[in-house]
Amino acid sequence: MLKLFATKGTISVAVALVLEEVGAEYELCLIDFATEDQRSQAYLEINSKGRVPALVTEGGILTETAAILEYIAPHMLPKDAFACAKHREISYYLAATMHINHAHILRGYRWADLETSFEDMRAKVPQTMAESCAYVENVIVGPYIFGAEFTLADAHLFAITQWLAGDGVKIQNYPKLAQLQRSIAARPSAATLAEKGLL
Amino acid sequence: MLKLFATKGTISVAVALVLEEVGAEYELCLIDFATEDQRSQAYLEINSKGRVPALVTEGGILTETAAILEYIAPHMLPKDAFACAKHREISYYLAATMHINHAHILRGYRWADLETSFEDMRAKVPQTMAESCAYVENVIVGPYIFGAEFTLADAHLFAITQWLAGDGVKIQNYPKLAQLQRSIAARPSAATLAEKGLL
Ligand SMILES: N[C@@H](CCC(=O)N[C@@H](CS)C(=O)NCC(=O)O)C(=O)O
Ligand SMILES: N[C@@H](CCC(=O)N[C@@H](CS)C(=O)NCC(=O)O)C(=O)O
Repeated sequence: MLKLFATKGTISVAVALVLEEVGAEYELCLIDFATEDQRSQAYLEINSKGRVPALVTEGGILTETAAILEYIAPHMLPKDAFACAKHREISYYLAATMHINHAHILRGYRWADLETSFEDMRAKVPQTMAESCAYVENVIVGPYIFGAEFTLADAHLFAITQWLAGDGVKIQNYPKLAQLQRSIAARPSAATLAEKGLL
Repeated sequence: MLKLFATKGTISVAVALVLEEVGAEYELCLIDFATEDQRSQAYLEINSKGRVPALVTEGGILTETAAILEYIAPHMLPKDAFACAKHREISYYLAATMHINHAHILRGYRWADLETSFEDMRAKVPQTMAESCAYVENVIVGPYIFGAEFTLADAHLFAITQWLAGDGVKIQNYPKLAQLQRSIAARPSAATLAEKGLL
């Protein structure tokens, strides 16, 4: 059986959401950041990067949210080859730009050493995340990114929307993004995750 | 005909390399960072993110290196579904962790405002890039990431190896990575890019 290592409020919510969407049987292992579970020797043996998500499959362990998503639900990509490439373009933007903009609020120590730098980075997050929200707002067709069809990038983006209030961005300023968040929060998969303590 | 916007010494080299590998006909448009071409109004209409690469296709414009790579050469992915997922895991690591570690040497202003923060970030790049090199060294089978087969992630990683000397990392400390770089530099596709002024 699949085993997902995940943490409430993180990007790993995207993977759990899609596992629920496809009705997969999986064991959910909650990793507690408060006790730094992600840095325990036991977890580093699962994912040497010390991050969530990690998915244990019969073939081996997978990390990286968007890579896991494509593995567990390839049918949740747009069918047309060019639309599928646009979908990946969005996923790479979410992983390498929007998620990274957010990471500077809490994880500045990954890229710098001084407390003054961390403060400086934290102060800029409302601006960089507002820019990222404006970018995705422009991409979303509505209610989901590609219109009526719920795709993997929607789950990925939904996980990121959890951070916006804390990042000093008002999601209401981005009506299509706010609608996407509401639409996903209303899905049965999201209700199940809430019951399981992940949302 | 395809039109690639690219800049010497950047991640866009990966896309040009794969276009050469597959023998695609394409027009190469060099974007000069010295004159900030990437921020010109004309280029922002191609890619509002102000970055390279961007590929103009008959179906529309594509950005994000790894998304473009999968579009132009899907046959350069491992065939097995799990290996393909591992391939994407690596691509997301390269885009969202290794490339980002490097970006802090020159582009600290994306995430902070003070000169002292930029200095602090620059100083940490040799460490974070050494960590990333150690991570990929461990993943590479040799001579390429997945063994004998040259895949998209090899082209992506090759583009990143261009930065290591400037990032204060000795590639010789990572024998499999150094071998991968040499193997790709020796391919006819790389020689063509050198002639075209991109390598
Ligand atoms: N590129 C990875 C990033 C994973 C990541 O950064 N996860 C964060 C939570 S959102 C984490 O585990 N952080 C723990 C830490 O940094 O200690 C992905 O998309 O899965
Ligand atoms: N996630 C993007 C990143 C693209 C990117 O950051 N490109 C850099 C060159 S390596 C760039 O165009 N920088 C210009 C600038 O920041 O002004 C990708 O993988 O294609």
